[in-house]
Amino acid sequence: MGEFDLIKRFFTRDPALTPQPATVALGIGDDCAVLSPTPGAQWLISTDMLVEGRHFLSTVAPDRLGHKALAVNLSDLAACGATPRAFTLALALPRADELFLEGFARGLFALADAHGIALVGGDTTAGPLNICITVMGEAPAGAALLRSGAQPGDDLYVSGTLGDARLALEAFRGTVQLSGEDFETARRAMEQPQPRVALGQALRGVATSAIDVSDGFAGDLGHVLKRSKLGATVQADALPRGPALLKQPLALQRLCTLAGGDDYELIFSAPASAREAVQSASAASGTPVTRVGQLDAEPGLRLIDAQGQVLPELPAGFDHFKASA
Amino acid sequence: MGEFDLIKRFFTRDPALTPQPATVALGIGDDCAVLSPTPGAQWLISTDMLVEGRHFLSTVAPDRLGHKALAVNLSDLAACGATPRAFTLALALPRADELFLEGFARGLFALADAHGIALVGGDTTAGPLNICITVMGEAPAGAALLRSGAQPGDDLYVSGTLGDARLALEAFRGTVQLSGEDFETARRAMEQPQPRVALGQALRGVATSAIDVSDGFAGDLGHVLKRSKLGATVQADALPRGPALLKQPLALQRLCTLAGGDDYELIFSAPASAREAVQSASAASGTPVTRVGQLDAEPGLRLIDAQGQVLPELPAGFDHFKASA
Repeated sequence: MGEFDLIKRFFTRDPALTPQPATVALGIGDDCAVLSPTPGAQWLISTDMLVEGRHFLSTVAPDRLGHKALAVNLSDLAACGATPRAFTLALALPRADELFLEGFARGLFALADAHGIALVGGDTTAGPLNICITVMGEAPAGAALLRSGAQPGDDLYVSGTLGDARLALEAFRGTVQLSGEDFETARRAMEQPQPRVALGQALRGVATSAIDVSDGFAGDLGHVLKRSKLGATVQADALPRGPALLKQPLALQRLCTLAGGDDYELIFSAPASAREAVQSASAASGTPVTRVGQLDAEPGLRLIDAQGQVLPELPAGFDHFKASA
Repeated sequence: MGEFDLIKRFFTRDPALTPQPATVALGIGDDCAVLSPTPGAQWLISTDMLVEGRHFLSTVAPDRLGHKALAVNLSDLAACGATPRAFTLALALPRADELFLEGFARGLFALADAHGIALVGGDTTAGPLNICITVMGEAPAGAALLRSGAQPGDDLYVSGTLGDARLALEAFRGTVQLSGEDFETARRAMEQPQPRVALGQALRGVATSAIDVSDGFAGDLGHVLKRSKLGATVQADALPRGPALLKQPLALQRLCTLAGGDDYELIFSAPASAREAVQSASAASGTPVTRVGQLDAEPGLRLIDAQGQVLPELPAGFDHFKASA
């Protein structure tokens, strides 16, 4: 099967069944897609590349991989409070594997449809498996949430729960034993993260800064602190975690929540005066949020336990050239 | 050296030395880039993935590879008549090779600066060498050149010369012998194509359709014919070729110009009444163009020789899952 047949078969969709956002004037099929920006909006752009053994395991089901490849990109739009509009997909495949492509496309488009984002361009080539997606979203001019806006004294929040993706990785590595149910829960968190797009949009005008957790809470919070030129005090054991992780020893809980990575939850800051607005955003988006600490003028990240004792330093954020997934 | 250090060292630039387009409100460094569209403009988007052995040979110098990775993407913007604005780069590397990255970034940014396009987002990961670039450009609403606009009776043109990239590939394969000078000329065409961005913009309002030659003249023209629901008659030996290729047997000249690929010239159509306007666009952009045939209402591609005799069918356009590079 030739490249063009492949693209057509799995990535062309019936426009009648999949209405595109009004911003998409021309989708896939020409040298470029043509997008018509909403007047007064800014465009938000992000790109992520996924490689086997690094961002996903060879054991992942194709539909979950299709989901995850788009989810990690949507998570970047969520962190900026953007409304998803369009994405491109470039795919290198060792061979034209129809079963893989069918599942991959199914998982990808299910998530795309759930967020109203249209595939507008693509490239397919033979080569070692590699998935590169670029997403485009919109936000009213000046309304995008950035890493740089946090203020001293702001509350620090995190959405959902942290650590299950790392817990699943440890189970795959054989360093922990999980019950069948716990393993499935953790594995789903790793393979099918839910980008917090609705929460990000609800936090426009409420949060002062935001970032998504891809490399681990401590490392990603570090980016906010650096950009905002601040420090933070975080109650390590207040970081939200699910039932599977709660059964594990405290040291593993802390490792997974603080330095696990692959969570795709949002870390965000907001002034204490906005606590009600934060709760409203949480309720409106159906996304639980937890207050875990506060921003300080003094640089550095201080982790404290429930008794207020400072914890020793924890592993650095996941680094693609230092750590292995 | 960690991932973040790498990115910072080679892909962060001094804003004072590299002014960004007014459309770039926030460049690299947050979860998303923020772009401010020009009022009344549409955005044009394209993505390309390059894999070793498929889109470039392992012998290519890193700076030429950096150039080519962006050039093939700019060529898609050129084919639509867009003004380049911003691009993202995702890079998988087997290891953090500083010599490679220095050269790659140098070639990439030299071409980016020449076209006023800014790097606004990126991703770096360990993995088999893979380069994925997504480009964004602008054009006045409704002015983009598309594959679908050609009309019966339109003249058919091609820019520059065709076939040198394929000639270089044949020399690397050992099927032809070239003088040192001819080899360097052909190799440069393969490794450092010049995207016809200025010509594309000059053809807005003049050309009725356009496409860039990536898979080969015959195959890419086929996309225009299919989209425009037309046929074409092309004088095969009128296809422009350079001095190195002109020394080769006619059969090889025809193979390289008709089915070579990797040329990144523009094929475009325009009504006979626009011949002067086409010449003006050519002159204004400093890009030679050659009239090579015409569009017909009758479907199919008819290749004729200088005597008007119809040629037998030629090899199909390069297909990534059929042919090998």
